[in-house]
Amino acid sequence: MTAPFSFRLLANDGMARRGEIVTPHGRVATPAFMPVGTQATVKAMYPGQVRELGADVVLGNTYHLMLRPGAERIARLGGLHTFMNWPHTILTDSGGFQVMSLAQLRKLTEEGVTFQSHIDGSRHVMTPERSVEIQQLLGSDIQMQLDECIALPAPREDVERAMRLSLRWAERSRAQFETMGGPGRGQALYGIVQGGDVPDLRIASAQALGEMPFEGYSVGGLAVGEPQDVMLAMLDVTTPAMPVDKPRYLMGVGTPEDILESVARGIDQFDCVMPTRAGRHGLAYTRYGKVNLKNARHADDPRPLDEASDCPAARDYSRAYLHHLVKAGEGLAAMLLTWTNLAYYQTLMREMRAAIEEGRFEDFRAKTREDWARGDLAPLD
Amino acid sequence: MTAPFSFRLLANDGMARRGEIVTPHGRVATPAFMPVGTQATVKAMYPGQVRELGADVVLGNTYHLMLRPGAERIARLGGLHTFMNWPHTILTDSGGFQVMSLAQLRKLTEEGVTFQSHIDGSRHVMTPERSVEIQQLLGSDIQMQLDECIALPAPREDVERAMRLSLRWAERSRAQFETMGGPGRGQALYGIVQGGDVPDLRIASAQALGEMPFEGYSVGGLAVGEPQDVMLAMLDVTTPAMPVDKPRYLMGVGTPEDILESVARGIDQFDCVMPTRAGRHGLAYTRYGKVNLKNARHADDPRPLDEASDCPAARDYSRAYLHHLVKAGEGLAAMLLTWTNLAYYQTLMREMRAAIEEGRFEDFRAKTREDWARGDLAPLD
Repeated sequence: MTAPFSFRLLANDGMARRGEIVTPHGRVATPAFMPVGTQATVKAMYPGQVRELGADVVLGNTYHLMLRPGAERIARLGGLHTFMNWPHTILTDSGGFQVMSLAQLRKLTEEGVTFQSHIDGSRHVMTPERSVEIQQLLGSDIQMQLDECIALPAPREDVERAMRLSLRWAERSRAQFETMGGPGRGQALYGIVQGGDVPDLRIASAQALGEMPFEGYSVGGLAVGEPQDVMLAMLDVTTPAMPVDKPRYLMGVGTPEDILESVARGIDQFDCVMPTRAGRHGLAYTRYGKVNLKNARHADDPRPLDEASDCPAARDYSRAYLHHLVKAGEGLAAMLLTWTNLAYYQTLMREMRAAIEEGRFEDFRAKTREDWARGDLAPLD
Repeated sequence: MTAPFSFRLLANDGMARRGEIVTPHGRVATPAFMPVGTQATVKAMYPGQVRELGADVVLGNTYHLMLRPGAERIARLGGLHTFMNWPHTILTDSGGFQVMSLAQLRKLTEEGVTFQSHIDGSRHVMTPERSVEIQQLLGSDIQMQLDECIALPAPREDVERAMRLSLRWAERSRAQFETMGGPGRGQALYGIVQGGDVPDLRIASAQALGEMPFEGYSVGGLAVGEPQDVMLAMLDVTTPAMPVDKPRYLMGVGTPEDILESVARGIDQFDCVMPTRAGRHGLAYTRYGKVNLKNARHADDPRPLDEASDCPAARDYSRAYLHHLVKAGEGLAAMLLTWTNLAYYQTLMREMRAAIEEGRFEDFRAKTREDWARGDLAPLD
């Protein structure tokens, strides 16, 4: 163990926060973007590359890993860090979100959720206790309570029922985490704020969780189909109700713009499949917005995606070549575009951290939005 | 241009040869294995990785590139070296082999071959002259004459007809290559020995080509379905009939054992999709033979493929993890196993070169065959 979990704030700029998390596997500069390693791999990337881009932490998906290769197997093999050759910090989700979105024959009760695997139809039970147990088997540094995340829009009574259930599951998760010795190993368990798009429920959830001894707090149940302005409005009411001295993690978010606007509202951690998934579908994120390499206008364009980038993938290959790789269905397309996208996301985070430290976050935010609005550079003509 | 094409022999050990090719894009230590970059990419590898493994030259497939993205387009974009970000030596085939194996509605005449693209059904004509023209547009350093390669077994008269046609096409290819200024750019055009599994036809082909001013000579029409002993018997009669002072390239070969045995018979250059294709299908080549990572016996095996390898892919990831990636269909499986396989192939070539230099090739050959025969290390038990 390097050090037990801790968080300290280094600077504030408006609501934006610059901080540092320490975990048993290293330091995490915040605001942080955490690449998603669903099945114990950040798709189409070598782990060393992910690290070199500046990622201090990656996310593993409990639902996927419990089904394949199995949490007990990963534990026998030395834990998830060893298994996936990532010696730095790992955050795992509770598995609940993907049980509800991917598994079959789901049945939710006070006790937990029963479901069938989407891979082989095998039956499983997920409870708050079992979720923590699996995350302990994986050995992740930052673990999540099991919660119920419902799709929006939804009636207030459904949102409130799910939020109250999530609070009761928060207590059970915490008890299990302490029983299993998580704090003694320096690990963290985060509580998850729910409450849908209902401001008073968000505030009630944040306050109730804030009275429980979690090492950090997540905002769940956003980026589940609601418009961006609803998401940001929810952050506007939620983050002020969250503890100041604990990290705040907005789950499953988002686009570069979502992240910029959420940092402006006091969020410290993010994860999203967007940069990796988009990379496998021919889409690049750059300083000047998105570039769809499938588009035929790139077929004869000798320019790289961004000649000023530090990332070889964005700098050393022409748009014409990337277009060709995408059209030909070559694996190198996903490899280069995922690399480009994760590089851009990490650059954005690094620049935001510097801007907050230097008290110029508002200028940075305006300039960045301006660059995006400028759009992709015009093709040759 | 670094230097015009040249070849010199540095050492002989029995029939095995250690040499060096120089091309406008660098030096090629022989015997050389040339990774296949079919569609302007060595599948699942960054070009920098391919280079770091010790590859001095990669192969591009004229048939694929002429159809997508098109040879004229690649020329406008600065040639294949620039297009695929590989500033080292490139060898291209003539396109003929894949016209006959992939294209539709093929019709072969004295003039050439008409065919339809397997991608979009578009009509094309491939002649000896057009093949050279395309290779000139690509700008490859080492180019191949168009030939007719027939599947074995085949009647002698068919084999002889194809061999004689290939000789006439050799003359036309050479004329076109000189007309287009290939020699002045320091490029090479290789003639291709045909003759199937008929010794006197192989010898006649080699001798006739040897009288034409090619910079190098290929052995074609082997590894097309015949048993290994037939292939080696053909090399036994063919290489002694080939010029001593020119490089000899055995096209499309092969397994590590094929390569070892062919080097023993005086071959200098090889290409094969085997290490890259196998890597995408869960198969690893190691010092101790092949390992099929799909096999369930690897699911709990914490050992790497080869703890003594210099290649991070073979050294830093457990068999259990590789098995998981293969079963989960993750792109990282292909990335790590292709890397492992190309690393092993290049290590084999490097070791053969050293053994020839030091006059101990026969010992190396025996020891290597012994290691392969030993088979994969036993699983944990």
